[in-house]
This record gives sequence, C-alpha cells and structure tokens, in this order.
Amino acid sequence: MNHAQEVVEQILRGEVRAAARLMRDLDDGLPGAREVLKRLYPHSGRAHIIGITGSPGVGKSTLTDRLIQYLRQEGKTVGVVAVDPTSPFSGGAILGDRIRMQRHALDEGVFIRSLATRGHFGGLTASSRAVITVLDAMGKDYILVETVGVGQDEVEIAATAYTTVVVTVPGLGDDIQAIKAGILEVADILVVNKADREGASRTYQDLMQMLELQSIRKTKSWKPRVILTQAKEDQGIEELLAGVREHQEYLGKDQGEALRAARYQRVRQEFLELVKEGVYKTLVEQLSHSGRLEEILQGILARSTDPYSASEDLMAETLGGGK
Amino acid sequence: MNHAQEVVEQILRGEVRAAARLMRDLDDGLPGAREVLKRLYPHSGRAHIIGITGSPGVGKSTLTDRLIQYLRQEGKTVGVVAVDPTSPFSGGAILGDRIRMQRHALDEGVFIRSLATRGHFGGLTASSRAVITVLDAMGKDYILVETVGVGQDEVEIAATAYTTVVVTVPGLGDDIQAIKAGILEVADILVVNKADREGASRTYQDLMQMLELQSIRKTKSWKPRVILTQAKEDQGIEELLAGVREHQEYLGKDQGEALRAARYQRVRQEFLELVKEGVYKTLVEQLSHSGRLEEILQGILARSTDPYSASEDLMAETLGGGK
Repeated sequence: MNHAQEVVEQILRGEVRAAARLMRDLDDGLPGAREVLKRLYPHSGRAHIIGITGSPGVGKSTLTDRLIQYLRQEGKTVGVVAVDPTSPFSGGAILGDRIRMQRHALDEGVFIRSLATRGHFGGLTASSRAVITVLDAMGKDYILVETVGVGQDEVEIAATAYTTVVVTVPGLGDDIQAIKAGILEVADILVVNKADREGASRTYQDLMQMLELQSIRKTKSWKPRVILTQAKEDQGIEELLAGVREHQEYLGKDQGEALRAARYQRVRQEFLELVKEGVYKTLVEQLSHSGRLEEILQGILARSTDPYSASEDLMAETLGGGK
Repeated sequence: MNHAQEVVEQILRGEVRAAARLMRDLDDGLPGAREVLKRLYPHSGRAHIIGITGSPGVGKSTLTDRLIQYLRQEGKTVGVVAVDPTSPFSGGAILGDRIRMQRHALDEGVFIRSLATRGHFGGLTASSRAVITVLDAMGKDYILVETVGVGQDEVEIAATAYTTVVVTVPGLGDDIQAIKAGILEVADILVVNKADREGASRTYQDLMQMLELQSIRKTKSWKPRVILTQAKEDQGIEELLAGVREHQEYLGKDQGEALRAARYQRVRQEFLELVKEGVYKTLVEQLSHSGRLEEILQGILARSTDPYSASEDLMAETLGGGK
C-alpha cells in the first residue's frame, strides 16, 4: 500500500492527526496531498453541511459553539470550518471567546479548522471546500462553516452549504440592508441573536416582511424560518436546531429531490471554481515564463494597448474563443 | 465619426449622461460599451484613486461625504464608486444618511456610481475597475472607492487604490482583529472614526503598536498615519486630507518611483483579473455548449471521478498545462 492510500485510510478511520497533517499539506500545496484529496472525494457527500454567516460581532462563533455542544450531547460528530478572521475559532476575537472555544479542543468528536488567513490552496473558496471534503470523508455527521457574510467569496461559501443560517442582531439597520443586498436569497434560516436587546421584535418583523416580499418571486418551496436566540445565555438553540432539522427533512422529501438539486449545485460550483483557479494559475505561469506577461504589461503602461484588448487577444490565442 | 468614438469624446468632455449610459451598457454587457472602454483606457491614469474601507457601521459613507465636500470646496472634481451594499450611496443604510448624500446629486463636479449588487460585468472587481476607468477618463481629479473591507474581492479593490484609507471605530475588538487579519498591510492611512467614543485613545494606541510591529518586516518606506475623526461632527477631515496629500507626495518622490510601482501593480492585477474572468467565461460556454460540462458533473456525482482530477484533465487538454 502506498503512502497516499495509507493516509486515505487513516482519515477514513477518522484519525485526527492524519487529517490535520493533510490540511496543512494542502495549504502548502504538496502534490501528494492533492492525490489524497482525490481519493477521499468518493467517500464524501454524507455530512450535513451548515453555513453560519453574518457580520462581525453578531455572535456567530457563540452560536457555533452552542450548536457543537448540543450536537455532541446527541452523540453526533462535528467538523467546523471557520472562514472568518474575527472568529475565536480562528484565533481572532477577544480572549474570553477564545477560552470558551477551548473546551472542544480535547473532544475527539469535534474537529475545528480555521481558514482565517489568505493565500491558501487555490483561494479561500477552494480551500474551504477541500477542508469540508476531508471532514466529510472523516465521517463527521455535521459540518459547520462559519463565514463573514459580506464578501462575494464568503457569500459563495455560505451558499454551498445544504442549510444556510444567516445571523443578525437587533438594531443593526445597516446589517438588515446587507442581508437584503447580499444574502437573503441564500438564507434557509434567519437568526436574530442577542434577542434580549431593544428592537428585537422590530428586527423580527422586518425580516418576516422581507421574506414575504421575497416569497412572491421565489421558486423554492422552502420558506425560511426566523428564530430568536440569545446564544450566550443558551436561549433558542434548541429551536435553531429544530429549524435545521426541519430543513434537512425538507431536503430529503420526494426521494431527496431538493437534496439532489443542492448536491448538483455544489458539485457544479466546486468543479467550475477549480477550473477557474487552475486555468488562471497555469496561464499566469506560462505567460510569466515566456516573458509574454511583461511585454503585455509594458504595452498597457505605455498605452499602446489596453487591458481589455490585450486579454481578448490572449484568449483568442489560447482558447480559440474571443471576447 | 462612428458611434463609439462619439461616446468617447462626450465622456472625455466630462458629459455626465454619456458616462451614466456607458456604465449601464457595461453592466448589460453590450459589446459596443466594451469598445468604448478600450478607447477610453489610454485617457485614464491621471486621477488620484483613494480606497475607503472598513466594516459596516464605522462611518465610511459619512467620511466619503465629507471628503467630497472638502475636495469640492477646493474646486477639485470627484468621482465616487460605492462597492458596499450598506452604503447610502448605494441606496442602502438608513434614510437620514441617504438624504445627506442627496446634496451632491445636483453638483456637476461629482459623479457617484453604486455597485452594490452582484452580477455586474465580469464580477465586482472588474466592474469597479471599469467604472474607475470611465471616471478617470472623464477627468475627475479624485476617485473615492468605498468598499466593505471584509471579503477578498473587497480587499483587492481597496488594495488597488493609490491611497488606501482603512476606517475603524473605538471599542470594536473584533474589528481590530479583522484589520490585523486582512487589511493592515494595505492601509496607507488608518482612521479611528467616532473618536469621541470611549476607548478611542486605546484603539489609537493599539493601531500604533500594530504598525510598529508591522514596520519591522515591511519594505515600503511609507509609514501609515493614524488619524482620529468624527465625521458626523466634521472633525478631523482636514487632517485626513492632509494625510492623503502627504501620501500623494510620497508617491511622487524620486521622479515618481513609488507611483510607477503602484501603477504597475494596478495594471498587472487588472489585466490578470480580466484574463481570469474571460478564460473562465469562454471555457464554461464551450463546455456547456458541447455537453461536456454535464458529462463531467454526472461523473463526479456518480463518484466515478472527482472534481480535482476532472479539472486537471480539462486543463491538460485546453492549455497543455497540468495540475
């Protein structure tokens, strides 16, 4: 048995150290690691992936922490991917939060991986997908993906979960706007955290109203739930988990039609992202190596061409396409 | 004179309606619009581009609003690109903010363009670059680019300004972490807004300390300024503008060596992003058209291949590269 196959089997047995090493090797771009990932892929696809997204400070990490706790009490295994520089899982946030998270560190049923910094294996999106594949192949029942729901990549990551939870807090007028602009269409569950704060019922009503408006032009038959929580005080977590389960059941209805559609979308995005990153990387290498890139850039700087024409010419050359 | 050339000349004369129409046509992907952009490009490169970035709620829009006001008082013309769904420039945020912004709507020396929603011409980054090129060719002296500094794209957009201003507020422990994780390395000026709030001097000191640490491993000779403002109360804006000017002078020193380096970086990123988007779009079209994409996706779903192997195979085919 070669080395890659050995690592594959360790990870399929759920060995934490092998998984941690693989994730590090993937970050470092070791070709062997990619080989392992390829072999793990057929064993993935069983975990229920939950995206947890929202602005910094709304309490995503505390919610994630509580969800881990509840799921563990039921004997479920949990993987966590924190794609959020402010998350205590990622070493960010204030000391108290970080200490709170530590309690899961010794639990073999929980695996936490942070992707807070840039420059990972093929970008943040590809990187988080690779980690999800590993956790999934390890046999985790649930994978929680915590992201700041503001950037495009972050929204994409959240959107590829099977159940996407969007978190807000009362009194963040701006935040409601952000949800409206970016992320409402991907939310399966909306959480109003810190629901003891003034304005919670107003926020609740605003969200319900937005969902009403949205449902008119929507094709999906799932109507997002709005749930009030106080994660720090351990309030509303059961309701949140019940909402997640309801959504899970919804996906499984009609011989899993909705689940199949969600899987298809995930695979499509995953593949196309890999193609995008890969083609780009290969092209830049080829262009840099041949000196062609420098030549084009000097042409643009001298205004003898422009980036639009130069990129079209290049594409016509390499792909026979154009524009 | 053909139509494209006519539009080019209208925009070079600074005609607002022609510019607004072009930006709309670019969004709609009209090929003629791209032709105009190509011809405008050689006329761009004169404006000083200022990125203004930070989390929702820190007061970026109010700062932007004040900067417009001060620059206009000096007779400078200003373009604004708001890549921020929570910005009042983008129709987001609370009503009061939006009304405040209206005052520039009738000023011919100000052109404001919002890119709050998705699905623009080649992605958010390409889209904001195109708008910047148009505003630049119109002859705007300053272009202010407001972005939420959390996502990868948003950081990239901010990083390609000549002067990048990162805004925070006191008492946002999380926010300092976010700055640390993502954006400190691109900041030329750090602003502590709402500086009348408790903890302002602490935030100031934290930032100064972080800059100290950063300066050890930095190669750039510019040391970022930290400036306290209260944008709503019109405090500290002159200091901020003085900081921007200092940075502008720094870029112009030594026969503009630093400015040339910044220009080179901008052109490099702009070109490579266009290549990335263009190659991707062309490939997806080709793959969808030939039925190849569907075939690959079904193979991945059936677990007879994996996305990593499938994307590598595809690349080896199309580019003769691999991996």
